[in-house]
Amino acid sequence: MNKNELKYIQSFAHKKHWAQESVYIIEGPKMLEEAIKAKCVIEKIYATKEWQGNLGNSGGDIEEVDDIMLGRLSHLQTPNQVIALVQKQQNIAPIDYAKQLTLVLDGIQDPGNLGTIIRTADWFGLTDILVTDDTAGLYNPKVIQSTMGSCFRVKVHIAPVEKILTKEKLPVIGTLLSGASIYTQKLPTNGFLVIGNESKGIRSPIQSLITHAVSIPNFGGAESLNAAVATGIVLSHWKQ
Amino acid sequence: MNKNELKYIQSFAHKKHWAQESVYIIEGPKMLEEAIKAKCVIEKIYATKEWQGNLGNSGGDIEEVDDIMLGRLSHLQTPNQVIALVQKQQNIAPIDYAKQLTLVLDGIQDPGNLGTIIRTADWFGLTDILVTDDTAGLYNPKVIQSTMGSCFRVKVHIAPVEKILTKEKLPVIGTLLSGASIYTQKLPTNGFLVIGNESKGIRSPIQSLITHAVSIPNFGGAESLNAAVATGIVLSHWKQ
Repeated sequence: MNKNELKYIQSFAHKKHWAQESVYIIEGPKMLEEAIKAKCVIEKIYATKEWQGNLGNSGGDIEEVDDIMLGRLSHLQTPNQVIALVQKQQNIAPIDYAKQLTLVLDGIQDPGNLGTIIRTADWFGLTDILVTDDTAGLYNPKVIQSTMGSCFRVKVHIAPVEKILTKEKLPVIGTLLSGASIYTQKLPTNGFLVIGNESKGIRSPIQSLITHAVSIPNFGGAESLNAAVATGIVLSHWKQ
Repeated sequence: MNKNELKYIQSFAHKKHWAQESVYIIEGPKMLEEAIKAKCVIEKIYATKEWQGNLGNSGGDIEEVDDIMLGRLSHLQTPNQVIALVQKQQNIAPIDYAKQLTLVLDGIQDPGNLGTIIRTADWFGLTDILVTDDTAGLYNPKVIQSTMGSCFRVKVHIAPVEKILTKEKLPVIGTLLSGASIYTQKLPTNGFLVIGNESKGIRSPIQSLITHAVSIPNFGGAESLNAAVATGIVLSHWKQ
């Protein structure tokens, strides 16, 4: 491990770096195991002696590091045995929107929220998420880690959301304060579910494309729900 | 503003400090407004010229600071006009457990998760949360900020959870992999809802007190849901 290599890994904390590189960073034995299971291409692994994982056919050059070096490389508060560089993949297969529910994120800003939303979508069996180009970046290490491995299964596409929703002519579910209660409304099985920005909600051009406006009834004093919690609640009612 | 005062505010980043002081830190006009509405005692306010808030009868000594000083005092990535010191309150009123659903948190570790759970509980009208003594600390600035003001309405009690659940003889709802689907099970209206630690779940002494084991059906690849998302989904089905 030389100084340049150390600096290179550390620089993944900065957007300029994680957005532009052809690889991204994952940390911990569990994440690496999930990446291997998903047949991701692992370029390089930094692991402590403690790490007992098996790379199988995923290749990847393994370099042993001590706990102090792992701590210096890591982007986590509690580094965990292994850090790996994984190749980014292009999502090129066309999506058949009519056959599934596709999640649409309009300007989600918090990396932890984005990661948790990807994990929640995976739990409920969704496979694709469309995001506006001002949404938090997928390859931000904070997003990747908070997906808990779901980033390897759910495909996230930066997409011209408005254009796609207009063109597809499918049901568009969206949470609006004025929407009908999810407890009384039957949700369509296919189409889109739009989740808006944490403080501003869904932007008006996209709002106007909503065909099924829903709301989660409020029984207390909070003014809003966390975006990932709201996503989970709507998806749970959609599956019910 | 002298050096000691600056150091004092900054030290709220450390547990030793926020756990022991008689005050805690809140940031941003919205949080301060909620604190005033909840009749909290505000001890001191540091605000930029931009801040237009009104303290009403809540008192509090106001000191004007510039943006640079606000940035040095702040615990946020994006400081927001005002930082205030609020007096901690003792929750001494006895709880009538038979008349409500009380949330029980068994070892939640992540401050953001705890804050989001408090906010979610508030949305669904819960007023009390019991936490085991190894749960993330309520007065951690990260917890307080992520409640988005719900910390002023929902009372969080560090409590001998096992003893209370045993004594009260009320329904105890808990999420377990082996539980019955929340989609088919009618949840009791009063009693307790137990949410377990992010990776270890509910500890066995508390597990054995569960009378209504429930699960959220899994339709995809994720192994688990985020604790706050799971709380929201169960509470939503409980209210439905």
